[in-house]
Amino acid sequence: MDKFSHLDENGKAKMVDVSEKSISHRQAVAYGRVLLNEKTYEMVKNSQIKKGDVLTVAKIAGIMAAKNTSRAIPMCHPINLTAIDIEFKMNDKQNFIEIFATCKVDEKTGVEMEALSAVSLAALTIYDMCKALQRDIEITNIKLLKKSGGKSGTFTNESNFS
Amino acid sequence: MDKFSHLDENGKAKMVDVSEKSISHRQAVAYGRVLLNEKTYEMVKNSQIKKGDVLTVAKIAGIMAAKNTSRAIPMCHPINLTAIDIEFKMNDKQNFIEIFATCKVDEKTGVEMEALSAVSLAALTIYDMCKALQRDIEITNIKLLKKSGGKSGTFTNESNFS
Amino acid sequence: MDKFSHLDENGKAKMVDVSEKSISHRQAVAYGRVLLNEKTYEMVKNSQIKKGDVLTVAKIAGIMAAKNTSRAIPMCHPINLTAIDIEFKMNDKQNFIEIFATCKVDEKTGVEMEALSAVSLAALTIYDMCKALQRDIEITNIKLLKKSGGKSGTFTNESNFS
Amino acid sequence: MDKFSHLDENGKAKMVDVSEKSISHRQAVAYGRVLLNEKTYEMVKNSQIKKGDVLTVAKIAGIMAAKNTSRAIPMCHPINLTAIDIEFKMNDKQNFIEIFATCKVDEKTGVEMEALSAVSLAALTIYDMCKALQRDIEITNIKLLKKSGGKSGTFTNESNFS
Amino acid sequence: MDKFSHLDENGKAKMVDVSEKSISHRQAVAYGRVLLNEKTYEMVKNSQIKKGDVLTVAKIAGIMAAKNTSRAIPMCHPINLTAIDIEFKMNDKQNFIEIFATCKVDEKTGVEMEALSAVSLAALTIYDMCKALQRDIEITNIKLLKKSGGKSGTFTNESNFS
Amino acid sequence: MDKFSHLDENGKAKMVDVSEKSISHRQAVAYGRVLLNEKTYEMVKNSQIKKGDVLTVAKIAGIMAAKNTSRAIPMCHPINLTAIDIEFKMNDKQNFIEIFATCKVDEKTGVEMEALSAVSLAALTIYDMCKALQRDIEITNIKLLKKSGGKSGTFTNESNFS
Repeated sequence: MDKFSHLDENGKAKMVDVSEKSISHRQAVAYGRVLLNEKTYEMVKNSQIKKGDVLTVAKIAGIMAAKNTSRAIPMCHPINLTAIDIEFKMNDKQNFIEIFATCKVDEKTGVEMEALSAVSLAALTIYDMCKALQRDIEITNIKLLKKSGGKSGTFTNESNFS
Repeated sequence: MDKFSHLDENGKAKMVDVSEKSISHRQAVAYGRVLLNEKTYEMVKNSQIKKGDVLTVAKIAGIMAAKNTSRAIPMCHPINLTAIDIEFKMNDKQNFIEIFATCKVDEKTGVEMEALSAVSLAALTIYDMCKALQRDIEITNIKLLKKSGGKSGTFTNESNFS
Repeated sequence: MDKFSHLDENGKAKMVDVSEKSISHRQAVAYGRVLLNEKTYEMVKNSQIKKGDVLTVAKIAGIMAAKNTSRAIPMCHPINLTAIDIEFKMNDKQNFIEIFATCKVDEKTGVEMEALSAVSLAALTIYDMCKALQRDIEITNIKLLKKSGGKSGTFTNESNFS
Repeated sequence: MDKFSHLDENGKAKMVDVSEKSISHRQAVAYGRVLLNEKTYEMVKNSQIKKGDVLTVAKIAGIMAAKNTSRAIPMCHPINLTAIDIEFKMNDKQNFIEIFATCKVDEKTGVEMEALSAVSLAALTIYDMCKALQRDIEITNIKLLKKSGGKSGTFTNESNFS
Repeated sequence: MDKFSHLDENGKAKMVDVSEKSISHRQAVAYGRVLLNEKTYEMVKNSQIKKGDVLTVAKIAGIMAAKNTSRAIPMCHPINLTAIDIEFKMNDKQNFIEIFATCKVDEKTGVEMEALSAVSLAALTIYDMCKALQRDIEITNIKLLKKSGGKSGTFTNESNFS
Repeated sequence: MDKFSHLDENGKAKMVDVSEKSISHRQAVAYGRVLLNEKTYEMVKNSQIKKGDVLTVAKIAGIMAAKNTSRAIPMCHPINLTAIDIEFKMNDKQNFIEIFATCKVDEKTGVEMEALSAVSLAALTIYDMCKALQRDIEITNIKLLKKSGGKSGTFTNESNFS
């Protein structure tokens, strides 16, 4: 772990060549939070109780973002995801929404960027749905929780939630 | 400020109808941070001193994300941005990279989601460029700093940086 | 009304030149139906009563399709839609779902293809959500109900529903 | 066949996890019709006799739609189609154009949505090419004719053409 | 004419800010050639005499490329083209196909990149249609022939065809 | 080598059916040149010496174009590239920039169009970055240098550089 993912020896951008890697089942879970004020949080919660569409729109945006990753992040390889799942948890004590995204693939390269993209666009969509209610919403703590598969094996993020 | 941006009275998703709004010059500035460990931070810094490509790739991803916003966030209106600018600042004390994105348009609807998308994808691209160096990178503090134009006028985010 | 929209005098494809047309407010309403068998229809209906996501996913697909029209239909001009609305009606007697899509724009060219694309992709998405329940779902009656704006003025479709 | 394709037990949208499915050769044929009035039908027919471009533009739109399916229908998996074929038949008695689309793939998931998307966009493109001739064109009878491959085996649609 | 289009004073990429420019009618014509060997050239020519689809597919690819320019070229602004026209000329003496693309817009920024993209993708598509016939096809002489509109006025390329 | 790649016996467009082909490792190298006048060439060269972003932006555009090939060229199959590499060489004697693009894949179909797309969009992006300096830039000599893999085996372009 001492070289940039996509830079050559001169510091110039270079997509990793994965052609010699072997196909394995790879999986990644990413995480993020959307911080709301009390009023906005309560409105989202009430809307969810009445089964409103806020988080459904965000989920779909996240799923489509995962599928779009290689067109959005310049050095990402195109891969055919076999599963994308997004879950939301409401934190009533601190007025934030937690987002968990899981991606799976059988490929030569991993899916952490796909999971992170799913979280990011789901979060931005929650922001978009709520921006008429509150202008200082904040998206935070976007990170990889876990990945498995490939030569580097399983990784679990031990960092405390900041 | 007491209704969701894109929900009807039944809580169902509904794109805002902006056809009756008037065209005005609108501008937004968004912000975000990428938290690195000391080793990764130093490597990015050294690479930037040698004018490596890490932040250039991130900037381009951010610019392209701003242009792609209405295809990524379901309820966003398509608009023709007239300017997108992305700036990075290195914070040596705390090992993070700050991202500032500014978008401009003359349209019936604002550009905050475009600026926030630019920040998010620039951040994800920094993550992608550095993920071989460090697996617990964190993206945080994504928020709107300022917006102007349109009926609601100028907004400046007074929240302390968390 | 005696020439193809996008063919030259030799029958070769040619995008219409709208540069000399004037900007006006244009609007179009399109329609379509998804025919289900009784069992599938009842399951969708029950799911909607419990506020499940079938039609929300379809609505979002329709909205995104409207925005994507000029990339999907070769001779369509890019335009910045100011409103897209999609409505569903359940027909209990005949077990079908009706889809109505309304698009608006202030542009040199109309929005009927945008409204028709929205209906088509919303219908295909309902199909996709239900295809594990029934394999002979049928999408039918896709047509323009109404358009207004532009030199040709208002049109209302008087055809009986077939 | 008693569960929605992409809903969880709470009725919330969820992409099917196909990671455990096995790769097999899968094929699907979809169908649709574009209903024209006599004048428009004759003009398309004459244009085709002179080898005009109407149906070629529609065919290309259909092929590109098949390739774009997973970006247009939210819960569709990305797959690498190995063949897309689109055929048109002119029905002189009833003034309609029939569209047949065949898609093939070696994947963990089927291609019916790809074939149906190809038919739908080919039909919309015929509409777009003819809309200056006739405003009440109708697209109808979009359905799956046949699919094969995968665990569920071969299906042939026995429904009469409505 | 002494500064790069999209670099700041430090040589870093920066999209031009066109927000202060005025809207005017802008037009550009671009050109390119596809060099074929005699056999391939004759086959294309015969196919065109029988009104085959080679150049129609290329034309559609060119039109769609023009519309996609701001998503393909990082620093290009999104604009709503009002006209795209592509013409082909067969040069029997030297066995090449000439491509002319004209784009129009009423915007704050010009359309030369759109016209050049149209030529490039039309040329690549001719290549793709013919690559089973000949492996050393060459695309050449891609350049701007003419542009008008905007502060810099009309430009006509006086360079001899190389 | 006596049939068009994507035409049926009637000269109508038809995507090649590759479903029966076998997967093999395939690779292609494409080439192109951007001709500059002396002043522009010197400015690019100086900018590169100071490690400016001109060629980095072009490289990223090329990489993204390779990934986008099946959406830009109508008859191209979608494939998951495993490597894309783009190299630039400055020719001081004749004031041109050479572009080399290499693509790799393990698939049923080759990658020459991907490599050629990468070259073309990298070239167009250099043009875009320099168009404020010079209006008669020319892109030329786009061709395949080499391909390997698949039934037809290895091909090396022996044509002299024109």
